[in-house]
Amino acid sequence: MKKSFGAKPLAFPLPAYLVGTYDESSKPNIITSAWAGILASNPPCLGVSLRPARYSHAAIVKNQAFTVNFPSSKLLAAVDFAGIVSGKNVDKFKDAALTPIKSDLVNAPYVDECPVVAECRLYKTLELGSHTLFVGEILDIKADEEVILGAILDIEKIDPLVFNYGGHYHKVGGPVGKGFSIGKSLIK
Amino acid sequence: MKKSFGAKPLAFPLPAYLVGTYDESSKPNIITSAWAGILASNPPCLGVSLRPARYSHAAIVKNQAFTVNFPSSKLLAAVDFAGIVSGKNVDKFKDAALTPIKSDLVNAPYVDECPVVAECRLYKTLELGSHTLFVGEILDIKADEEVILGAILDIEKIDPLVFNYGGHYHKVGGPVGKGFSIGKSLIK
Repeated sequence: MKKSFGAKPLAFPLPAYLVGTYDESSKPNIITSAWAGILASNPPCLGVSLRPARYSHAAIVKNQAFTVNFPSSKLLAAVDFAGIVSGKNVDKFKDAALTPIKSDLVNAPYVDECPVVAECRLYKTLELGSHTLFVGEILDIKADEEVILGAILDIEKIDPLVFNYGGHYHKVGGPVGKGFSIGKSLIK
Repeated sequence: MKKSFGAKPLAFPLPAYLVGTYDESSKPNIITSAWAGILASNPPCLGVSLRPARYSHAAIVKNQAFTVNFPSSKLLAAVDFAGIVSGKNVDKFKDAALTPIKSDLVNAPYVDECPVVAECRLYKTLELGSHTLFVGEILDIKADEEVILGAILDIEKIDPLVFNYGGHYHKVGGPVGKGFSIGKSLIK
């Protein structure tokens, strides 16, 4: 018998991504987003939701572009920091000792210390009450050579962070079964 | 120096959720979605993207409702199975030995074996090329008593699945630091 826990924004797991933009003076900035995910395959779409009051919101509208950076667990303090302070007052790249790199394809910086990054042009926008959903078309994924495993990227080497609403961030644990394979055992 | 990996729908981590609906004959059905996430806080919004050809797509349009179910890793085979076969031809609940429960608040079934579920009414829809994004307003989260930990839900007891595009599903690993706390060490 399940208990009602109320109308809350909960889901398991949630991600912890870093969204990169340039502000109006071309200063690179990042903001943490757990309200985010892949939303389509073709074009490959990555959505991130931000409150209109956040400094990065205006930067995405102005540049029509952003990056999404997938941090390793060793970047945890920087990831949490980027969600606490505002780029209006702080140079988050500098204070978190991160390196902004100008993207090849869009007017936005990526985080060099993240093993995998996505360069996105703004594709569609949807207002959802408290947040604006920015859907980016992924124009390119860039990855450190060490995490490239043939045709896929090595999630264990990427070592990404799981956001846990109201609690502790978690690491991704061990593998439990192959996709589009282990479920075949249930086909009658 | 990062290497270009192409325009692919990749992000780390990604979730593995089960989306529950009733079809036109009121048969309960589920489909796996990794193209999904929380997209706003108020109203609490949970988005799931489905291809128009999928059987669950028409069911969401018709009922204007769905559930999102957060499976534990022990349900892995059922989760993978629900993404491989179609509810048009198969009773997925029956074949995966899962129990459909009629939601209290919307016309959709939830999966009793999932420790946490969300009852959603369709709030907004956005066409994104290959996929339709269905944004549900979470009307209630329901959870098994064992995973309720005061004001939050216990992610370790929920034991959710991480989807890994092209590879193996993973479990969520151990905690690495408290949210809105560990990042304060970087504030100057």
